[in-house]
Amino acid sequence: MDKPNSFELTGPEFIPSQYDHHIVRKLSSMVGQYLDIEAYQEILAKDDLVLYEVYEIKRPEVAGELLHGVSIVHPGKVGQEYFMTKGHFHTVLNTAEVYYCLKGQGMMVMETPEGDWAIEELYPGRVLYVPPRWAHRSVNTASNSDLMTFFIYPGNSGHDYGTIEQQGFRKLILEEAGQPKVIDNPRWKAPGAR
Amino acid sequence: MDKPNSFELTGPEFIPSQYDHHIVRKLSSMVGQYLDIEAYQEILAKDDLVLYEVYEIKRPEVAGELLHGVSIVHPGKVGQEYFMTKGHFHTVLNTAEVYYCLKGQGMMVMETPEGDWAIEELYPGRVLYVPPRWAHRSVNTASNSDLMTFFIYPGNSGHDYGTIEQQGFRKLILEEAGQPKVIDNPRWKAPGAR
Repeated sequence: MDKPNSFELTGPEFIPSQYDHHIVRKLSSMVGQYLDIEAYQEILAKDDLVLYEVYEIKRPEVAGELLHGVSIVHPGKVGQEYFMTKGHFHTVLNTAEVYYCLKGQGMMVMETPEGDWAIEELYPGRVLYVPPRWAHRSVNTASNSDLMTFFIYPGNSGHDYGTIEQQGFRKLILEEAGQPKVIDNPRWKAPGAR
Repeated sequence: MDKPNSFELTGPEFIPSQYDHHIVRKLSSMVGQYLDIEAYQEILAKDDLVLYEVYEIKRPEVAGELLHGVSIVHPGKVGQEYFMTKGHFHTVLNTAEVYYCLKGQGMMVMETPEGDWAIEELYPGRVLYVPPRWAHRSVNTASNSDLMTFFIYPGNSGHDYGTIEQQGFRKLILEEAGQPKVIDNPRWKAPGAR
């Protein structure tokens, strides 16, 4: 655990040559997150699709350590809404995250507890800095390619999924006329309404 | 400062499309670090060569933030010893660092305050985790290519260059018969001798 450690993260596949956890998130874990509830139920009745996967390198979950790994969001849609990650705040809110996009095409949807929002594009070679306090969700806007990112965040950050599960993200990314479009989430709970 | 921020880090050049500081380290800043003092003086008398450069993205230097940027070690040798960075401990010793090698060929030379040492190879696509407490120095072992890495470390880490300036690294990387070779540093000050 306390020795320097290396692994390979090379294209075109970008699966880390070494990892400790492989997390698979399926459609059934995203109840209430997609706008089109009928489309969600219809797909789920047929197949509990894999939406995204995460390869994690294990390190102690304490300040000073850096947790890191690779995220893969598969291409697809629920209704017109693209496949995406659950999205989360860090439990220790004042912790940042760095993303380096390895493959694909997408967007990072972000917001603060006060309801400020931001969206940044992801494509190969793009570095994204998610400052402390910003919740973040990766959305794959490509029709036939995985969205892959290398992520690094402080060891003590933790994951708060519950807040987003309850209030949603303020902005959603839907396909309209073949292009990604940012829309207001009609079910978003604004800070005053929580 | 508190908005999400993106920039590009793409080949073949891998110079970040946006940065706040550009640090240039020359031979004259490495007094006493190269084994071959005569060769060092001889080169310096002719030209104060640029050994390495760092492009830094500015963020607050506090825990929870992540400092990040790109390091470029140029190819070259002082005597038989390859061009390298000064190398340093983090002032807050219990802080890690992640490196992602973008270009070139090299080695990371590392050691703990207790004198444990480790060397890991760097080449494109290689991720290196430098755990808390390990001093680290990048060495370019290629004859004609820059060694480029993307680095990320906790905002509160700080840089302690003084310890390495005084005690040196335990291991040096020299060229022998056209190949990099790890040798003991005869001037290294072991923990008991400091």
